[in-house]
Amino acid sequence: MSGQLFVIGLGPGNASQVTPEASHAVAEAEFFFGYGPYVDRLELRPDQTRIASDNREELSRANAALQRAAEGAKVAVVSGGDPGVFAMAAAVCEAIEKGPVEWRDIDLTIIPGVTAMLAVAARIGAPLGHDFCTISLSDNLKPWAVIERRLEAAASAGFVIALYNPISKARPWQLGSAFEILRRHLPGDTPVIFGRAAGRPDERIEIVKLEQADPAKADMATCVMIGSPETSIVERAHKPPLVYTPRFSTESSQ
Amino acid sequence: MSGQLFVIGLGPGNASQVTPEASHAVAEAEFFFGYGPYVDRLELRPDQTRIASDNREELSRANAALQRAAEGAKVAVVSGGDPGVFAMAAAVCEAIEKGPVEWRDIDLTIIPGVTAMLAVAARIGAPLGHDFCTISLSDNLKPWAVIERRLEAAASAGFVIALYNPISKARPWQLGSAFEILRRHLPGDTPVIFGRAAGRPDERIEIVKLEQADPAKADMATCVMIGSPETSIVERAHKPPLVYTPRFSTESSQ
Repeated sequence: MSGQLFVIGLGPGNASQVTPEASHAVAEAEFFFGYGPYVDRLELRPDQTRIASDNREELSRANAALQRAAEGAKVAVVSGGDPGVFAMAAAVCEAIEKGPVEWRDIDLTIIPGVTAMLAVAARIGAPLGHDFCTISLSDNLKPWAVIERRLEAAASAGFVIALYNPISKARPWQLGSAFEILRRHLPGDTPVIFGRAAGRPDERIEIVKLEQADPAKADMATCVMIGSPETSIVERAHKPPLVYTPRFSTESSQ
Repeated sequence: MSGQLFVIGLGPGNASQVTPEASHAVAEAEFFFGYGPYVDRLELRPDQTRIASDNREELSRANAALQRAAEGAKVAVVSGGDPGVFAMAAAVCEAIEKGPVEWRDIDLTIIPGVTAMLAVAARIGAPLGHDFCTISLSDNLKPWAVIERRLEAAASAGFVIALYNPISKARPWQLGSAFEILRRHLPGDTPVIFGRAAGRPDERIEIVKLEQADPAKADMATCVMIGSPETSIVERAHKPPLVYTPRFSTESSQ
């Protein structure tokens, strides 16, 4: 007997940005696995069970959820934002690949959500309005040299860059180092956006120039976006400025 | 007197993937500007007005919507997916930058949505589970040489690649040319996903190898994703395979 596993994206944190599809899956499931603050967003019924775990335990969390589903239960794994962007969907697929063959028969439904960079971008204009790259700055699971090379490639080729997992207590220097690398390839006045908790009561969104970008402005819940040389700022007398990357490119090919 | 402009992301096309925030804005607005098929998704009331236009008229559509808002109306510009990803938010920002200074006082609210690549990824596993790039293949507004350079940079640096606007009647050869470029940098067995109309009744999602990728499988409504060398396929006896890109990277730095 095999049960059901939902991998649910809860969006950036505002209830009005949770899709009906996600809400429906939350209503269906019996057991909820996830990082504590994401599970805490749910208003569970007495017959629903919360199994919260620490941030860095993705694979063991995925294994536990699959085990429970394989026993016949309706199980949810919840992520903030979208589960496919540096979140639980990849850990669940990896656990299925490495786990017992029966896990491949579990009815798996992945439910997309509004990922952080989209929520931050919407609050400020359209910084992702043209070609962009999305990079996790965590070197827990990949060598820092790979990250460096990707930052260089992205900046040199004119991509806007969205950085996830920019900084944490265990990774204090990486964001500063990333800004140093990017300053070698991009003009000093390139807009940098620090977008924290978009759409939530504690939202804080700041725009600075790359030459002044201070890693201390970011925390674990911040999405950092670095414009391309074409990203533009539109000042408004009575409102915050808009930051956008034009749909066209006037860049030459070399 | 200045009115209100909502730029609304309607998600991939399934009503259960429209956020409550987007639905609320649709209920509020009086005039709806957008590409015909997107405006057609809305169930408007008799007191709401539909102003549909052609796909390639983004800037004139944005101007018309801003003009109406500046007259005091509550106006919506609707996009499929997320309005900040190759959609109307950048055109609206551009129109504000170039337009009369009063337009900067319009109350502008951009409402994010589930963009196509997230919806396609969720249907198939977690292909965007690690660093990725998002590239529009349209060379209407940027030189093809810039696109070539970005494809090369993305593939060489190990990014997964999501292609928007892969093909159209006016742009028939670009996707084939992109596959040729990518074949020079990536193994022939790299998974390529053709994801069309994810979550809609006419959904069609196919996985092929890069060496066999046929541009004829794509149309305007397709999001094409090309894995990195680390993207993996998990076969399942009774279900479609899962495609995912692991959270870790074992790649060396050079």
